[in-house]
Amino acid sequence: MCELLGMSANVPTDINFSLSGLIPRGGQTGPHKDGWGITFYEGRGCRTFKDPKPCYQSPIVRFVQEYPIKSEAVIAHIRQANRGEVLLENTHPFTRELWGRNWTYAHNGQLKGYKKLPVGHYRPIGATDSEWVFCWILNQLSEKYAKKPTNWLTVYRFIAKLADQLNLMGVFNMLISDGRYMMAYCSTNLHWLTRKAPFGKARLLDNDIEIDFQQHTQTTDIVSVIATQPLTGNENWHRIQPGSFVLFHLGKRIL
Amino acid sequence: MCELLGMSANVPTDINFSLSGLIPRGGQTGPHKDGWGITFYEGRGCRTFKDPKPCYQSPIVRFVQEYPIKSEAVIAHIRQANRGEVLLENTHPFTRELWGRNWTYAHNGQLKGYKKLPVGHYRPIGATDSEWVFCWILNQLSEKYAKKPTNWLTVYRFIAKLADQLNLMGVFNMLISDGRYMMAYCSTNLHWLTRKAPFGKARLLDNDIEIDFQQHTQTTDIVSVIATQPLTGNENWHRIQPGSFVLFHLGKRIL
Repeated sequence: MCELLGMSANVPTDINFSLSGLIPRGGQTGPHKDGWGITFYEGRGCRTFKDPKPCYQSPIVRFVQEYPIKSEAVIAHIRQANRGEVLLENTHPFTRELWGRNWTYAHNGQLKGYKKLPVGHYRPIGATDSEWVFCWILNQLSEKYAKKPTNWLTVYRFIAKLADQLNLMGVFNMLISDGRYMMAYCSTNLHWLTRKAPFGKARLLDNDIEIDFQQHTQTTDIVSVIATQPLTGNENWHRIQPGSFVLFHLGKRIL
Repeated sequence: MCELLGMSANVPTDINFSLSGLIPRGGQTGPHKDGWGITFYEGRGCRTFKDPKPCYQSPIVRFVQEYPIKSEAVIAHIRQANRGEVLLENTHPFTRELWGRNWTYAHNGQLKGYKKLPVGHYRPIGATDSEWVFCWILNQLSEKYAKKPTNWLTVYRFIAKLADQLNLMGVFNMLISDGRYMMAYCSTNLHWLTRKAPFGKARLLDNDIEIDFQQHTQTTDIVSVIATQPLTGNENWHRIQPGSFVLFHLGKRIL
């Protein structure tokens, strides 16, 4: 299994505090030593840092921490391999283009029978069940909407229906984003919270780090964080009910 | 206009020396201040570092230099914007999937009338002529070969025919790779050389750096480097004739 981390914000926001809570789980306090990756959106563009090495000792993770990139949408993943060797091409998140936007996705879980799902012209590059079903989701979307859709809530509800199907094939916790919306589908474990004014202090569970968000924010900032397990001990994390999803836009939960 | 840098090698090779020759041209000794990017292949996977900032002052370029990644195929680009704003999504190289492989591409030049070229389901994300015609090339390839082709030299010869068409629409210097082959198409300026045993010393033109390759190589190593302008002063760079291409595989020129 793996751990997921996502962020949606209404202003370009530094994810470093949450990332500091996730990193020790990548081979130090947690078993997810088979690589890690993070994708930051900047407008229509995005940049991904990934490494098949354990993230708690990855030089690339140290660089990302020292040079924090501010973003409105972030997806990160630390991997404990089941299907697919420990290789760069099997490392999440995966990004593909659909309707002229970058779609980014990461998965935690394991699926059976997924190779029967048609992927059309979205062919997997690596050997993971995760990338295969991402290709299937994109193929389903491109077949349902030949032209770029206009009602995005309907699009994400359709993605949730696809996720329901995948959930019947095993464990399917997922984050997916087109850079504007951020969707979290829960099969077993996924939690979220929204931080907004009045901001308080938060303390990480896996790292002796405390932050006072009031010193780093404007009163209009809204930031939601999604994680497999809560990252902080003194905040009110909501568990997503298995078999359901939440959708964020500019930091706010909208579905 | 922009500058291109490519490498093909038969062993994972550090491109840092050549990169040190290119970087000053990104806003210091050269005018290409509108971003830079570099893609390294590692097997079927690849990783891209890019930044819309000038590369000579980019923290990401410093990280790439301090943490040299060894690769058998590399494409780098420094940008002087003409079409498309200075934004992450307009920064080269561009990578897309075709036939289950990552294809990476960078372009130097400017084209007219490119929006008439059909891109099919490879829709551009940014606003550059470069990304548009990359999408067109991939669409042409996917239409010509519905299934993954087996004769790769024929595929690259077909790409050269497409490049010939683009060359009639303006200036089209290009690097393209699927991680195994590296193709360079020259419209105006593109040079290459192959380094193999007996290895000698090389001195950069843009930076006071000399390297003795004999101290960093095995006798079986073969590495070819492609650059818009020669990077070293004491080596025999070959100019690619305008309107023609060269193709490398594992460091060797094969076409």
